[in-house]
Amino acid sequence: MSNIIIALDAMGGDSAPEIVINGAALASKRYPEAAFLIFGDQRKIEHLLDDHPKLLAVSRIVHTEEFVSGDDKPSVAIRQGRQSSMQLAINAVRDEEAQCVVSAGNTGALMAMSKLTLRTLPGIDRPAICALCPTQRGQSAMLDLGANIECNANNLLQFGVLGAAYVKSLLGIKNPTVGLLNVGEEDIKGGDVVKQAAVLFRDADLPLDFRGFVEGNDVGMGTVNVFVVDGFTGNLMLKAIEGTVQLYTEYLRQAFKSSGGSKLVGLLATNAFKRLKARIDPRIYNGATFLGLNGIVVKSHGSTDDFGFSNAIGVGVDMVKNGLNEIITDELDAYADRKGQKKN
Amino acid sequence: MSNIIIALDAMGGDSAPEIVINGAALASKRYPEAAFLIFGDQRKIEHLLDDHPKLLAVSRIVHTEEFVSGDDKPSVAIRQGRQSSMQLAINAVRDEEAQCVVSAGNTGALMAMSKLTLRTLPGIDRPAICALCPTQRGQSAMLDLGANIECNANNLLQFGVLGAAYVKSLLGIKNPTVGLLNVGEEDIKGGDVVKQAAVLFRDADLPLDFRGFVEGNDVGMGTVNVFVVDGFTGNLMLKAIEGTVQLYTEYLRQAFKSSGGSKLVGLLATNAFKRLKARIDPRIYNGATFLGLNGIVVKSHGSTDDFGFSNAIGVGVDMVKNGLNEIITDELDAYADRKGQKKN
Repeated sequence: MSNIIIALDAMGGDSAPEIVINGAALASKRYPEAAFLIFGDQRKIEHLLDDHPKLLAVSRIVHTEEFVSGDDKPSVAIRQGRQSSMQLAINAVRDEEAQCVVSAGNTGALMAMSKLTLRTLPGIDRPAICALCPTQRGQSAMLDLGANIECNANNLLQFGVLGAAYVKSLLGIKNPTVGLLNVGEEDIKGGDVVKQAAVLFRDADLPLDFRGFVEGNDVGMGTVNVFVVDGFTGNLMLKAIEGTVQLYTEYLRQAFKSSGGSKLVGLLATNAFKRLKARIDPRIYNGATFLGLNGIVVKSHGSTDDFGFSNAIGVGVDMVKNGLNEIITDELDAYADRKGQKKN
Repeated sequence: MSNIIIALDAMGGDSAPEIVINGAALASKRYPEAAFLIFGDQRKIEHLLDDHPKLLAVSRIVHTEEFVSGDDKPSVAIRQGRQSSMQLAINAVRDEEAQCVVSAGNTGALMAMSKLTLRTLPGIDRPAICALCPTQRGQSAMLDLGANIECNANNLLQFGVLGAAYVKSLLGIKNPTVGLLNVGEEDIKGGDVVKQAAVLFRDADLPLDFRGFVEGNDVGMGTVNVFVVDGFTGNLMLKAIEGTVQLYTEYLRQAFKSSGGSKLVGLLATNAFKRLKARIDPRIYNGATFLGLNGIVVKSHGSTDDFGFSNAIGVGVDMVKNGLNEIITDELDAYADRKGQKKN
C-alpha cells in the first residue's frame, strides 16, 4: 500500500548518505504508505540499503555523482548543480514523480533551487521557512526562519496565510490564531514594516484570527498558533531557543552530577528525564517546511541523526496526507475572490 | 562607609514602591557602601522604610506625587513628567548627586528621558540596552535589547565598543571577544547592514577581538563575550530565551509530577533543583544597562520581585565601582586618536 512517494536527496547533510537511508528505514516502519525515490551515489546507497530489506522493497535509486556541498553559494549550486542529487530530487516533485522532497543539504541552495524549479503559488511573492516549536500549550508554527532576510508588510501578511494553512493541515486547527512578533504589544511599538503589516492583517478578510502584536516570550507560552516574523529575526530566535534548550539541559546534568547524593537521585530520576527528553528533544521538531511553493519541500537539520531525519520525512508525509498545498491554494483563491468582490 | 549613591525611581514597576524599597533593603545588606536617594511618594516610602531601619539610615527621600505610568508614550512622559519620580532620579545623576539610577518603570520613557537628560557620550550616536545572559561558559553580554529598532552599521560598531567596555568593567575580561549576530557565519550571509558592520569592525583598530558573524545558538554556548545585534532582533531573542527557560522549567516540573515514584524522586532532588535554579533564575540576571550615556542607568524588569530588584541595584553598584563610563570614554578617546593618526 504505497501511495505517497518521497524524493530524498541522499547526499545532503553532515553525515549523508548514512542518516538519510537509516532515517528512511525508520520512517518506512512508521509510514507503511510511503515509498522512496532516492537520488545520489548508487553504490553507497545500495550498500546502506543492504541492511534495510523492507526499505529496499519500497525504494528506487536514481544515480548521480554530483551533489551540492554545504558551503556552495546558492547561485553556484543552481548553475553547476543541474545533475546534483538535490536538484534531481526537486525535479521529481515538479514532474509529479514524487509528492514531496526531503533534504538535509545546504539551506540556501535548497531554497533557491526549489523556488526556481517549483515556482511560488499564485498570490505568494516569496516562500518562507516554517517549523513547529514546543510551547506550554502544545505546538505553534513560526515563520519565516531564514529564507527572507528583509521582508515588506505584504510578505509578512502572506506568511500569516501560509502559516495558518500549515497549522490547519498539520495540527488540525480550524481557525488558527496568528500573531506578529514585535518588541511590544502596543500599536506604537516596532518599525514601519510590522506596523504596516498589522494594518494589512486587520483590513484583510483572511481565513485566520489575527491577534495583533506578540512578544518573544509568547513563543514559549504558545499564545498564538502562528508566529509571523522576518527571516533574519526568526532564524536568530529559533537558534537562540535551541541554544537555550542545550544550555538548560547542560545545567540540569551538572546539577545532578555535583554531589554523590544527587548522582544517585539522578539515576532514580531516569524515567522523569526520559519524559522530559521526549518533549524537548530537538530531533522531534526536525523538519522545516518551505511554504508557498508549487510542491512540498522539507529541510532537515544538516547535523541531525537517523531519528531526526526520519521525523523530517514524517513532516513531509503528514503534509502530503493532509493536502497542505490544496488548503493554501483554496484559501488564497477565496481571499482573492473576496478582494475582487470588495472592489466591485 | 557610604561612598556610592544610588538614585531610585521608587514609583516604577508593577509592584512599586514595595519591590523598590524591599529590594533596596536587600541590596543595602549586600553593599554596605551604598546609600540611596529615593524619589517618590514620601508617605508610602516612609511606611515601607519603617520595616528597614538600616536602609532608612542610608536613605534620603525626595517627595514627588508624579510618576510615569507603564503605558505612557515616551514623548508624553517627557512633556508631562518633569516632576515624575523617574525624571527626578535621572536628574540626580546629571547633577552628580547620585552615581547611578535604577528604575523598574516604563522602558521607552526611561530611555527617552535618560537620553535627553544625560546625553550620549562623545563618539556614541545612540545608547543601547545591554544585559548579561547565562551561557555554557559563564556569562556573555548581549546588546541592543530594544532601544534601537533600526540600526545602521556604525550603530552596531559602537554597540561592540560599548559591550566590550561593559564586560571589561563588570566581568573583568581583558580583551573581550565580540561577535555580530547573523543567520550564518559565512561572509555572504545576512543583509547589507550586518555585512557593512563586519567590514567596519575588521577595519577599525578597536580595543576588542572581533570574531565575525555568530549565530543564535552561539548565545547559549557563550562563543563570544559580547553579542551585537539590532534592538528589534535582540529584544525578540532575549524574550524568546526567557520564554524557553520558563517552558523548560514547566516541562521539568511536569516530568517529575507525572507519577507517584517521580514525585518522590522530585522531593529527593530538591538540592539538585536548587542548584539548577540558582543558575537559571531570571531574577539573577535582572538589571539591564543603558550604555553610551553620560551616566549609569539600570533598568529592572517591571514585574520582578524584591530579590530581582536588589540584583538590578547590584548591577549599578558594580558598574560604579568598576568605573564603566571611564573605561568607555578612555577607549573611545584612544580609538578617535588612532583614527586621527591614521588620517594624518
